[in-house]
Amino acid sequence: MVFSTIHSSIQLSIHIMLKVPDHQVAGHQARNGQLGPLIDDSGRFYKPLQDDDRGSKEVAFYSSFSSNTRVPDHIRRLFPVFHGTQLLEASDGSGLRPHLVLEDVVSTRSHPSVMDIKIGSRTWYPEASEDYIQRCFKKDRETSSLSLGFRISGLQIYGNEESGFWKPERKLVQNLSAADVRVVLKKFVSSDLPVDPNSDPDCAFAASVYGGSTGILAQLLELKAWFEDQTMYHLNSCSVLLVYEKEKLLKGERSDAEVKLIDFAHVTEGKGIIDHNFLGGLCSLIKFISEILTSPDECTTKACLRDSEKDKEILTSPDECTTKVCLQDSDKNTNHSENGTIEGM
Amino acid sequence: MVFSTIHSSIQLSIHIMLKVPDHQVAGHQARNGQLGPLIDDSGRFYKPLQDDDRGSKEVAFYSSFSSNTRVPDHIRRLFPVFHGTQLLEASDGSGLRPHLVLEDVVSTRSHPSVMDIKIGSRTWYPEASEDYIQRCFKKDRETSSLSLGFRISGLQIYGNEESGFWKPERKLVQNLSAADVRVVLKKFVSSDLPVDPNSDPDCAFAASVYGGSTGILAQLLELKAWFEDQTMYHLNSCSVLLVYEKEKLLKGERSDAEVKLIDFAHVTEGKGIIDHNFLGGLCSLIKFISEILTSPDECTTKACLRDSEKDKEILTSPDECTTKVCLQDSDKNTNHSENGTIEGM
Repeated sequence: MVFSTIHSSIQLSIHIMLKVPDHQVAGHQARNGQLGPLIDDSGRFYKPLQDDDRGSKEVAFYSSFSSNTRVPDHIRRLFPVFHGTQLLEASDGSGLRPHLVLEDVVSTRSHPSVMDIKIGSRTWYPEASEDYIQRCFKKDRETSSLSLGFRISGLQIYGNEESGFWKPERKLVQNLSAADVRVVLKKFVSSDLPVDPNSDPDCAFAASVYGGSTGILAQLLELKAWFEDQTMYHLNSCSVLLVYEKEKLLKGERSDAEVKLIDFAHVTEGKGIIDHNFLGGLCSLIKFISEILTSPDECTTKACLRDSEKDKEILTSPDECTTKVCLQDSDKNTNHSENGTIEGM
Repeated sequence: MVFSTIHSSIQLSIHIMLKVPDHQVAGHQARNGQLGPLIDDSGRFYKPLQDDDRGSKEVAFYSSFSSNTRVPDHIRRLFPVFHGTQLLEASDGSGLRPHLVLEDVVSTRSHPSVMDIKIGSRTWYPEASEDYIQRCFKKDRETSSLSLGFRISGLQIYGNEESGFWKPERKLVQNLSAADVRVVLKKFVSSDLPVDPNSDPDCAFAASVYGGSTGILAQLLELKAWFEDQTMYHLNSCSVLLVYEKEKLLKGERSDAEVKLIDFAHVTEGKGIIDHNFLGGLCSLIKFISEILTSPDECTTKACLRDSEKDKEILTSPDECTTKVCLQDSDKNTNHSENGTIEGM
């Protein structure tokens, strides 16, 4: 442990070194004297354990997972490294509290674009309390979880040195329509700063961030293959983080896009059954991302049309992209969904 | 239409020709003057439309699906052929009622083994009424739908000429544990008549029914690949039927194992989103079936041990199969799940 080399009181030293994370997009935050995670300069992330059983559940998960030899290496690297637990001064000033010591997944990045996506159409699970089940049931129906199989819990997208980050209100992003989610996933990999909600994402970095043999889609597909097989864990209410550094791409460097799974306070044992709820939601997310990759022309076309059409644009679905090119003169905004309407429905 | 060649009153002729299906394992049944589907001798299945919107929804689905040129042939053959609708005397004597005219998927079989598996951990959907949602929510939690991602709605397994069929009470099969479902799926492809609930399935026909390039697993995997991509339909509360003829296998003939999707009264439009609920449940079923295929030794070993161990056996998981071989002397029945226990949970 790095702290054992420090001379004076270990707790005091740690206290001085810790700070509030800059790039947290979801979850409890340590700002304004509240309880939340802290980071240090050596790439570690300190997550306070909740008083209820969520804290001990998350420790139990990390303990089990980190020593589980049946987790293949290519899957293990999609999870934060676990460094045990440690007693630290809590960020809310309430005194010493046990913290999970984890890898800080954005520590090596200066301006990371980050998206936190909670996977699963259902965030509750049979073993939970009836009160918890009912609250989750309500929230899953109110957000996009039920319809899409996931919900965006938070995000920040880096524009450039001048514009900085776009970090919309979390409540705004949790119940986006399918069309809006497509736009957000496109904005995430676009070169233009997505401050204007009506701007057209150019998807300039879709191929390098989402695509390729080491891109986000490839990592999600590896995860999917594992979930089709593993029956050890059910990751209820868990998120995937999508992270990359736009500056590297702007400089022409190779993408460092990463998928990381986080938030394991509600993990239950799989008991020989696959996590069909997580897997279904993951497949839905994969479909959204692969559609962006398989329709690059639509994005490029839109990028060309941006200046002339900018004022007319609303959040659009990829199908509308193509349609729009044909319809730009007549200015129709009809929603062309993929499917033929089911007669009589 | 076959009926246009009949001289006398069409309705009367139809009435005489129709009969109650022999091999229906789930759903409403036409026996005892109740409303239910009927069949004829030419391989057609007549399903009465419900008075509420379920009937018209199912017609709408079949109309849309049968004319949808974007459904590939290898997927279309997993659905019953649709021959339109027809006014017929209802089986409950209530007079003329519109019926869906469908392919009778077991008409060419004399002693079909049939399993009806309702797919999805959730059988309700956002567009349904609050009352319907609450009833489904309750039933999904009471049956195995929530835990397994599917529930067995009914089944019949053919033994041999002497023993006939094993057709357990539907209520008994809807809430089986994972271990029990494994046993039922093994019994389904075993040579011995599964009358005795404690008997060990020998899985004699697992490779020919579940396995191979045209077996049930291959068909389910084709279906899975389509569900990973198609965003036209959400098949809420829909079942897959697994069907084969054991007599053919006993005679050494090639398996005619088939997967058919049925029950589309609750289909909704996909609106550009994959059916993550169906897909997750389907993946769970696939995992159960592939485990039977990848552990044939356990079945065979158990088959050898059957006579000596028969009296001790209970419904066992595949992991227990192996374990039991080692433990037979000490007669331990501890449940060895696949996963290491999550510490502290």
